Amino acid sequence: MPTPEPCHDIAHLGHVEMLTDKPDESLNFFVNVLGLTESGRDKESVYLRGWDDYEFHTLKLTASDTTGVAHIGYRAASLEALERRVAAIEAMGAGIGWDNGDLGHGPAYRFKDPDGHVFEIYYETNRYRAPEGERPALKNQAQRYHGRGVCARRIDHLNLLAQDVSAIADFMPRALGSRITERIVMDDGTQAGCWFTVNNKSYDIAYTRDHTSTRGRFHHVTYAVDSREDVLRAADIFLENGVFIETGPHKHAVQQTFFLYVYEPAGNRVEVANAGARLILAPDWEPVVWTEAERRKGQAWGLKTIESFHTHGTPPAGE
Amino acid sequence: MPTPEPCHDIAHLGHVEMLTDKPDESLNFFVNVLGLTESGRDKESVYLRGWDDYEFHTLKLTASDTTGVAHIGYRAASLEALERRVAAIEAMGAGIGWDNGDLGHGPAYRFKDPDGHVFEIYYETNRYRAPEGERPALKNQAQRYHGRGVCARRIDHLNLLAQDVSAIADFMPRALGSRITERIVMDDGTQAGCWFTVNNKSYDIAYTRDHTSTRGRFHHVTYAVDSREDVLRAADIFLENGVFIETGPHKHAVQQTFFLYVYEPAGNRVEVANAGARLILAPDWEPVVWTEAERRKGQAWGLKTIESFHTHGTPPAGE
Amino acid sequence: MPTPEPCHDIAHLGHVEMLTDKPDESLNFFVNVLGLTESGRDKESVYLRGWDDYEFHTLKLTASDTTGVAHIGYRAASLEALERRVAAIEAMGAGIGWDNGDLGHGPAYRFKDPDGHVFEIYYETNRYRAPEGERPALKNQAQRYHGRGVCARRIDHLNLLAQDVSAIADFMPRALGSRITERIVMDDGTQAGCWFTVNNKSYDIAYTRDHTSTRGRFHHVTYAVDSREDVLRAADIFLENGVFIETGPHKHAVQQTFFLYVYEPAGNRVEVANAGARLILAPDWEPVVWTEAERRKGQAWGLKTIESFHTHGTPPAGE
Amino acid sequence: MPTPEPCHDIAHLGHVEMLTDKPDESLNFFVNVLGLTESGRDKESVYLRGWDDYEFHTLKLTASDTTGVAHIGYRAASLEALERRVAAIEAMGAGIGWDNGDLGHGPAYRFKDPDGHVFEIYYETNRYRAPEGERPALKNQAQRYHGRGVCARRIDHLNLLAQDVSAIADFMPRALGSRITERIVMDDGTQAGCWFTVNNKSYDIAYTRDHTSTRGRFHHVTYAVDSREDVLRAADIFLENGVFIETGPHKHAVQQTFFLYVYEPAGNRVEVANAGARLILAPDWEPVVWTEAERRKGQAWGLKTIESFHTHGTPPAGE
Repeated sequence: MPTPEPCHDIAHLGHVEMLTDKPDESLNFFVNVLGLTESGRDKESVYLRGWDDYEFHTLKLTASDTTGVAHIGYRAASLEALERRVAAIEAMGAGIGWDNGDLGHGPAYRFKDPDGHVFEIYYETNRYRAPEGERPALKNQAQRYHGRGVCARRIDHLNLLAQDVSAIADFMPRALGSRITERIVMDDGTQAGCWFTVNNKSYDIAYTRDHTSTRGRFHHVTYAVDSREDVLRAADIFLENGVFIETGPHKHAVQQTFFLYVYEPAGNRVEVANAGARLILAPDWEPVVWTEAERRKGQAWGLKTIESFHTHGTPPAGE
Repeated sequence: MPTPEPCHDIAHLGHVEMLTDKPDESLNFFVNVLGLTESGRDKESVYLRGWDDYEFHTLKLTASDTTGVAHIGYRAASLEALERRVAAIEAMGAGIGWDNGDLGHGPAYRFKDPDGHVFEIYYETNRYRAPEGERPALKNQAQRYHGRGVCARRIDHLNLLAQDVSAIADFMPRALGSRITERIVMDDGTQAGCWFTVNNKSYDIAYTRDHTSTRGRFHHVTYAVDSREDVLRAADIFLENGVFIETGPHKHAVQQTFFLYVYEPAGNRVEVANAGARLILAPDWEPVVWTEAERRKGQAWGLKTIESFHTHGTPPAGE
Repeated sequence: MPTPEPCHDIAHLGHVEMLTDKPDESLNFFVNVLGLTESGRDKESVYLRGWDDYEFHTLKLTASDTTGVAHIGYRAASLEALERRVAAIEAMGAGIGWDNGDLGHGPAYRFKDPDGHVFEIYYETNRYRAPEGERPALKNQAQRYHGRGVCARRIDHLNLLAQDVSAIADFMPRALGSRITERIVMDDGTQAGCWFTVNNKSYDIAYTRDHTSTRGRFHHVTYAVDSREDVLRAADIFLENGVFIETGPHKHAVQQTFFLYVYEPAGNRVEVANAGARLILAPDWEPVVWTEAERRKGQAWGLKTIESFHTHGTPPAGE
Repeated sequence: MPTPEPCHDIAHLGHVEMLTDKPDESLNFFVNVLGLTESGRDKESVYLRGWDDYEFHTLKLTASDTTGVAHIGYRAASLEALERRVAAIEAMGAGIGWDNGDLGHGPAYRFKDPDGHVFEIYYETNRYRAPEGERPALKNQAQRYHGRGVCARRIDHLNLLAQDVSAIADFMPRALGSRITERIVMDDGTQAGCWFTVNNKSYDIAYTRDHTSTRGRFHHVTYAVDSREDVLRAADIFLENGVFIETGPHKHAVQQTFFLYVYEPAGNRVEVANAGARLILAPDWEPVVWTEAERRKGQAWGLKTIESFHTHGTPPAGE
């Protein structure tokens, strides 16, 4: 019997389009506090990225009358890989169709996950070219380390809420070729959370159960910094800038990420995190399964999971 | 024209077999100072690994009358992927043949690089199962964080010396499907160094030019720790244990690794390093090319490259 | 009118004598987990110290049928300074009398604070002389950085419980010449906590209100490490060793210490902490006063103060 | 015989007046790269301070036709302590006389060290009062952690060059009541360096031998950050801003400071450093003496001391 091989059609998480009903305050947060850099604007959107994100943008911040996530983009490994994924997704009946792309990338194929979140996959991308004043001293990084605010390095992952996490756990490996690296299985057999990756990062997307009956909600987007010390420093910067810190810094038991959660001014949750040298290198990694009792223990060093972490998502849903 | 896709037949660097003519002193260094854990022994070898290495071993330390590297192992992504690589390597005329494996893994196909270093690729592996007393508090890591010595987390990469780096740069992508992420090209057009990866790490092997006429020599093996602070702590531990520190801690310009080089008691160079949150996620990453003038500037923050770094390899070659 | 001058008769906190009713387990914790080094034993006591504590001991661990603190020692700046303090304390009517000292130091004058905790002050001390095998590579530190467990550097401070913190706030400046650096004043005017120092550290002792009616209880003793990263590493080491983590790591609002609280096996609370580069250098530092409302906000980054922090002390008091 | 007691008449190093012949470039460096905050200006000077310096200024940057140090200020512990020091210095014949002070402090008594550097001691100081926009979230720090550039916390120490270090070693304890904590004694018996402190920091001033025949020269001023990680981050910020990095980051053997040396635009050397939790608490600390052979070993982890460290001072002296 042939051994299964990880699929590599999708190279990595590309970007998240976040909605905000306080666009000026949100933009100020992302640029001056989190330390992202603006690379362009069109219509209602500002394109932003961390200093070592190689693409034009990893966050598309769009003014709206609500909050939450508009769409999530993943970059394919090649045009052929893109075509393979499109064929698979169409066969699954989940496809929406092609979009012309935006300032950041070329044609993108859109589809929906079982909870209604909109995704797109694309190959052609607009690489970030640092303008004068943003060129790095070392030619192997995308932009200079500017040192502004938290100075987030790159997009890391996002977390979405879903009514049925098991349906997502079935969907993602078929749609994106994702591998499941960790999951939480409750005593009743339902899944409370599931973590997926398309590459060697331990996850690029996670889903947790939405305890409301709303669909398509957003839990958080995460930017990576280089060290736990950077996360601690971020906490001081958030504190001094009046940003609401929900919980952290602390270490997750699941995935062992060193985390810090805040709400940007419109209420979308943002995480700053560091994973140390942890990578998923085994091609046949067996998903780690956490029980309800294990999760009840709280985070790695004993911090109880804060209640709002289970309830707050965007847009609000009568929480 | 089809866009090229990264090959993923090889999942990751697996292990290095290092030779030592001071086996007891070397073993003490790797276990009590670097903080590796012994998982087994046979004949002249002791099998060792970092606390989060998932395989049985990542370092096979073999008593010998000399020093240097005996062979390097890479793990394939599947049995089919292994077969594809074997076919490719045989077609290149570089193959040696099958080996029955050892305590750490199943059948391995051996071959030589153009400089004569012996490699092997394998799929079947012997996963590390932590014995009582070494079980981790968190089930998603291979072994408990024991805190002994430098407490290295996992094997990261190795560096070999070669007469003709360009020949290697041609060979590796064809043999292992490696991608070149960075290289140094001298004013005369020759390559002084080349960095390769088979996954999202920025490199798993590097080659630099051997300025002696010897072939098959070893430059260093590197273990990863979680932070730059861990590298600094390692420096204190090496200092207190009388380990020869060659250079560092400092930050490389090439690959930006935060490094620290020491010699284990038999003279083999060992590096402790951290790469922060840096990963190569772009499927179409363009190799970064450093010029002779750029390299002459030294390391990232200006430290001059120490002369022995260009000359010391193992086994010695009349340096 | 003459400006007040800080008193410098007392140089620094010297040691704490802790009682344990699980002497073997406690000793294992302090040596193998916290990383202190044993320097001697007599009768029911083991003398312990951090690797850069210059005196013979900073923790005297004494087997007993209960837990808590037996006495606290401070070292005077000179014999004359010691005499001045003895005279002052005798005039206050708080004195107990002279003690011959122990393995760690010479004659000590004992007294009680208003809550009944026993203190002693001494000048003659037995400097730690590192035996072969513990000699440091750098001659300006007391012992080698051995790297065992948390590898705590030096004693930092202790915290005691008291019925009447205001009485202590009146007593300490007169008895030891301490300065008050921070305090918590409740809406009803009573003091909930008070932090004292005899030198440039921001505090060497703190008192918080005992909500039981018991006297002379102990809250915690703190050892300093060099960085916040060391505190995080300590959390992993405690986790792997099954040590109960009460709360943290997090940053205190009061004094801004980066803290981690655990219970040693007998139930005495132990803190590992780092204060960064913070020092009290102003000779006329004005005590920082925190209100009840400010304290209700929790710790610096918003962590709520855990309930047991207000209730758990040693020996137990029907908590 | 009475035991000697440390003198505490002088509380701490207060400020350094630095001369620059490139005032705009220097000011940009100190504010935007090192991250100091301007608190005032008069005539040719700008007053600057780190975010946790409690006084009005710790660096007075004065436009001049040369570089180097104009004067160094120490704050006395009280008016009486100031008078005692003035009397002692006048008796030594080193006094210059009273100065009216400047924006930062009240009357100051000026004197010269044996090499001709000008010092002043003062008690009345102008405490920094954070204006709107600079108020800290936590009331026990002087100013908000603004996160700009290196974001240096406080002045730490300075280093001066002198023809005769032994003369300084004799002078400072008598003039300021300083204690000598470490020194370098060459094989010929001369002192190559001497480190002094007036409080529990391991040093607030150091002198090293000037190998030219010029007097009154300046070697460097040092600002403290909270961690070694902050020093490493500073190196990246200096690199990106084109600041000349002379040497480091590395760990000194003497005093064990984790250091990084750069030249500000006018050529004055500036250090960013961290000392971890190291303090000099012993009232009878015995100076550590380093031999010529020991110093030849280089820094703690083996880095050779860079030649310019022995030659470059300001103003230039035909180096």
